Amino acid sequence: MADLTHNDFLNGAVKAWQPAKGYRAGVDPVLLAASLPAKPGQRALELGCGVGVASLCLLARVPGVTVTGLELQEEYAQLARRNAAEAVAAFDVVTGDLTQLPEGLRQQQFDHVFANPPYFQRDRSTAAQDTGRDIAFAGETPLADWVAVAAKRCKPKGYVSFIQRAERLPELISEMGGVLGSLQLLPLIPRAGREAQLVLIRGRKNGRADFRLHEGLVLHQGAQHGSDGEDYAPVIQAVLRDGAALPFPV
Amino acid sequence: MADLTHNDFLNGAVKAWQPAKGYRAGVDPVLLAASLPAKPGQRALELGCGVGVASLCLLARVPGVTVTGLELQEEYAQLARRNAAEAVAAFDVVTGDLTQLPEGLRQQQFDHVFANPPYFQRDRSTAAQDTGRDIAFAGETPLADWVAVAAKRCKPKGYVSFIQRAERLPELISEMGGVLGSLQLLPLIPRAGREAQLVLIRGRKNGRADFRLHEGLVLHQGAQHGSDGEDYAPVIQAVLRDGAALPFPV
Repeated sequence: MADLTHNDFLNGAVKAWQPAKGYRAGVDPVLLAASLPAKPGQRALELGCGVGVASLCLLARVPGVTVTGLELQEEYAQLARRNAAEAVAAFDVVTGDLTQLPEGLRQQQFDHVFANPPYFQRDRSTAAQDTGRDIAFAGETPLADWVAVAAKRCKPKGYVSFIQRAERLPELISEMGGVLGSLQLLPLIPRAGREAQLVLIRGRKNGRADFRLHEGLVLHQGAQHGSDGEDYAPVIQAVLRDGAALPFPV
Repeated sequence: MADLTHNDFLNGAVKAWQPAKGYRAGVDPVLLAASLPAKPGQRALELGCGVGVASLCLLARVPGVTVTGLELQEEYAQLARRNAAEAVAAFDVVTGDLTQLPEGLRQQQFDHVFANPPYFQRDRSTAAQDTGRDIAFAGETPLADWVAVAAKRCKPKGYVSFIQRAERLPELISEMGGVLGSLQLLPLIPRAGREAQLVLIRGRKNGRADFRLHEGLVLHQGAQHGSDGEDYAPVIQAVLRDGAALPFPV
């Protein structure tokens, strides 16, 4: 993997090497990490961790958390290890396929399992030219497998959290409803008056509470993109710049 | 059925007799009827029509529509027929069970099929004292059957529309996703800052568009219930008082 960039997240509290042309982390993994109800000392597993941005953001926010990342593509896993080492973070990265989970992971359960699965289904998207980007954007692994593996690797009463495109919600919610309880959905609305593009959704292993559909969280202020730089809503600015939590409404 | 009340909907444009103590129509069937993308001359089927409030609201709003209502409980069906007759509305009410559809209905398909199915699952709710109210609130028929029958009775490219409690969305969306396409979800938020209590959801027979999650529609203005009567948001007031449409966002 030739060309890399070194990028700041959380106003520089997290730094990550990532391929200049492959899949590049945006705000989505940062929002996912901010939404986890993780407490100090807990253990978390990220499925499909890429270069590790979500995991590193979680580690930066919650003291004493340890995170394991699983990544299919060796080049991304190596960058994740490099990013972990440079951050001196308790982040262990395993190369492997979630449908053929490495033996060491198959014997563990975590307080939190989280993922930002590929956004497009292979058969409905045009293949990207870059193979790494292609796999990260439009993986071969069905969402059902992401959900099933996440639920199995989650401790009783632990949480499984995903960020995903809104258009895939029916599939995601159906699968999660089969193996998790206490589902909560937080729609992410780009601007007031628009429909959700992304959703944060989480469930609880053995949870028994009713499903909750929260009011959509508006990411950007104003009716359209301003010309003077970023226009994130204050609560999102606090997440992206200050590393604040993004808790689901109580 | 001894005690009846005669109630106004749409500021008196719709009047309906209903049992004083049984299941009583509130704003939910009015919102459902307002959301249907029905055009003049089309045919619609309401499953579980009760005394017919949703159907009568649809008939009042869209000229030249004809509606068939199916109702399990004969007492409610009779009231629906009385309400239809007094309104001189093109509303035909059939008594029957949607899981054993009367022969005449089994041979028809409609441009729109809609329902406000019972909100609670029998096994999770305390039985109400009034039998009619009990069946209307917590029917024996699984949501899966409501969805399956609605989809079967819908013409190709026709619409199936439901209003339902938000907590049952996972079940509803899973079932709808199996037999309908082009799903759209419109959360109904009681007040800004609250979670959705109800959802409007519709799908299209043979639809192929992606699922869409619209921004939640806020029903009431202000942070809490005011002391000076109703505080509906203007768009909701227009529906409830003026009989306006409540179209899903384009």
